[in-house]
Amino acid sequence: MEPTASPEAVIVGAGLAGPLLASLIARRGHRVDLVEGRPDPRATRHHGGRSINLGMSARAIAALREVGLWQEARRLSVPMRGRMVHTAGGRPSFHPYGKDPSQILHSISREALARLLVEHAEKQPGVRLRFDARCVAVDRDRARVTLADGDELAADFVVGADGASSIVRTEMQRGLPAAFSREYLEWGYKEITIHPLSDGTPAVPLEALHIWPGERGLGVAHPNIDNSLTCTLFLPRDEPPDPVSEAFPHLAELVPDLDEQADAAPMSHLTTVRTAPWHHRDKAVLVGDAAHAVYPFYGQGMNASFEDCLVLDGMLARHPHDREAAFAAYEHARKPHTDVLAELSARNFLELRDGMRSPVRLARKRLDLLLHKAFPGTWVPLYTLVSHTTVPYGEALRRARRQDRVAAALAATGAGLGVAGLLAALGRRHRRNPR
Amino acid sequence: MEPTASPEAVIVGAGLAGPLLASLIARRGHRVDLVEGRPDPRATRHHGGRSINLGMSARAIAALREVGLWQEARRLSVPMRGRMVHTAGGRPSFHPYGKDPSQILHSISREALARLLVEHAEKQPGVRLRFDARCVAVDRDRARVTLADGDELAADFVVGADGASSIVRTEMQRGLPAAFSREYLEWGYKEITIHPLSDGTPAVPLEALHIWPGERGLGVAHPNIDNSLTCTLFLPRDEPPDPVSEAFPHLAELVPDLDEQADAAPMSHLTTVRTAPWHHRDKAVLVGDAAHAVYPFYGQGMNASFEDCLVLDGMLARHPHDREAAFAAYEHARKPHTDVLAELSARNFLELRDGMRSPVRLARKRLDLLLHKAFPGTWVPLYTLVSHTTVPYGEALRRARRQDRVAAALAATGAGLGVAGLLAALGRRHRRNPR
Repeated sequence: MEPTASPEAVIVGAGLAGPLLASLIARRGHRVDLVEGRPDPRATRHHGGRSINLGMSARAIAALREVGLWQEARRLSVPMRGRMVHTAGGRPSFHPYGKDPSQILHSISREALARLLVEHAEKQPGVRLRFDARCVAVDRDRARVTLADGDELAADFVVGADGASSIVRTEMQRGLPAAFSREYLEWGYKEITIHPLSDGTPAVPLEALHIWPGERGLGVAHPNIDNSLTCTLFLPRDEPPDPVSEAFPHLAELVPDLDEQADAAPMSHLTTVRTAPWHHRDKAVLVGDAAHAVYPFYGQGMNASFEDCLVLDGMLARHPHDREAAFAAYEHARKPHTDVLAELSARNFLELRDGMRSPVRLARKRLDLLLHKAFPGTWVPLYTLVSHTTVPYGEALRRARRQDRVAAALAATGAGLGVAGLLAALGRRHRRNPR
Repeated sequence: MEPTASPEAVIVGAGLAGPLLASLIARRGHRVDLVEGRPDPRATRHHGGRSINLGMSARAIAALREVGLWQEARRLSVPMRGRMVHTAGGRPSFHPYGKDPSQILHSISREALARLLVEHAEKQPGVRLRFDARCVAVDRDRARVTLADGDELAADFVVGADGASSIVRTEMQRGLPAAFSREYLEWGYKEITIHPLSDGTPAVPLEALHIWPGERGLGVAHPNIDNSLTCTLFLPRDEPPDPVSEAFPHLAELVPDLDEQADAAPMSHLTTVRTAPWHHRDKAVLVGDAAHAVYPFYGQGMNASFEDCLVLDGMLARHPHDREAAFAAYEHARKPHTDVLAELSARNFLELRDGMRSPVRLARKRLDLLLHKAFPGTWVPLYTLVSHTTVPYGEALRRARRQDRVAAALAATGAGLGVAGLLAALGRRHRRNPR
């Protein structure tokens, strides 16, 4: 008997999710055309203004492990063991991410991770890469992709991994009753660099995410392996502080040319995209930002996109003879959780903007972590569930809400409860809510 | 001194809001090009499937009065004095719309109203109409409109009155950080006709909106001046009842060819569109469905679009030398209220679908009307505020919520309160909430 040819896929978009998904599905014999409108990231240098550094956490790590790239990605990254908050008048305060050294994030430049993924995808049998190959049209019923140079690619299915402004999504949904929403944050961002000191050492302790809460701005810096930090200045789009240094006096001390860098940087926008459906029959499907762009304030955009790829690959394996069922199961499994992530990411903007200056919220964070250390299996802060586990986002939120109710009940019954009382309260709550 | 030439406007879309706005602004000397992609409604017959009959209520009446068209529109319409609900087993029940004969709706065919408005706009000095003239591009910074035949129209500003799929909106917002959302109801609709009986009399009492709540469907019929009724069948898009007559046994008795008509009618979609901003500098502005398409279940889509035109015209008059300020004031004044209308319209779908069979909700509606009759200045049901006044939608909702709280408080204090107690409660509540 002749073996059936595995289905052929065209993946549009070779940013991050695209090459990861190509590598994943190629393992089961899918032949894949991976096309990307931009140039090969291995041939170009960082062009600036385009990227917030990425924090790899549990979900990205799980996906990279699956394709055998985690150790290499780790070597290209700097561990971030917690947040370092720089507030006016006083030393920066450090807040660990988790209860132990395993609960940390890993800062990597978008370009380094992209190159690693593209390099790996290209080595997989059956995967063919084309850069400078912009998709201009998709025939959703025939699974055909037309490129800007006129070439038409035929496939069994098309994957839209082409970001928040996905053309695959537009073409897939054109004229159909598809829900779509796009919001822009009233704040945008500019990217600057915190260079190492003249002796080559980093200007601030390297192994942390640095936060500068400002009156009308928020600075967030990720470390790079060359001892520089990439600092993202989040600013109100309508009336950004002018000069920027006025909003960030502490940062200006570290970055003498802060205003020059900020003036030269374009103001980029932040967007949330929600849509449904994510697939069209068995012919087209969306992953990553094309399906659910989120604000970057939970550091989960890339992590969630990678998780999409794992889930989609798993569903294709589970339904080898019914791709439409695989796509539907993937959408059903993922969308509720990425909807929750969109909410959490929007909420975290407010927390980062306002909460980092609020002693009450910082105290609540510390209490969360304290309870987590005391009862690691029972009490897990929301941030820990999102960043250091692969518990689905929606389930993480439900669990955190139960904890919030317990905390509120504790507060309502007075401050006299010791650990014994807390344990008892947790026990009662858990018996009532067995999940 | 030479008089300044009044600004020239291109209005894209001559459905309903377009010609109304043209007539309004022409009064102050604006020269207007009104362009429409479809043919002249005066030259064509009703083509079916495209329109839910319109119920003119207080807001539309106010706008039509403003351009002197109300009496003529009224002659083309049939008054609807209340809802007539056809439920299984029993006589239809009648529920008046308001406390007196002035609080009624007026059913008119979309085509008749469109012809009236177009006819009137064409007579205004300075207004030029072009049908079969599809807008294909808008230069938002230069206020230029390109038509499908290649003609370019120059103007001082462009108005997008081109409906839920507005091309003016798309072109105005392209690449800018504009919020946009589009949702589709999981139910769509088909349109059928309830013909008069063989003796020429209407098959059901004419002066009412007729409602057939079904298990998996909802029929709503508006009267026409020829004694027919246009019946809209709202049905789940995924699994519509098949045959339709099974879901509407009572309606099937009145319409012998119900299934044939339903099979022949296309399934149309219902959409909610929200967006911001509604304007671009002093060059482009949106009205009607282009800015805020809503579900038809509150009967307010056209009424709200007409109100847009009144408000925009008023703001242009108030800011004669600063059109950008006029556009901004218009958007600021209207958007909060059309957002509320979108919510009310979605909520009313559930009420119409489920509530018409619920004795509790019908009783609550009757109580609302009773209180309204007893205390006409103090207690006004939400439906009355929306349909029979020009109180802004948001303010109507706030007022109704206060009433709901009073009703809840009354219920909580027991059923022993008579009119005196009710009056006292209302008095107390009103002193506390002076608005």
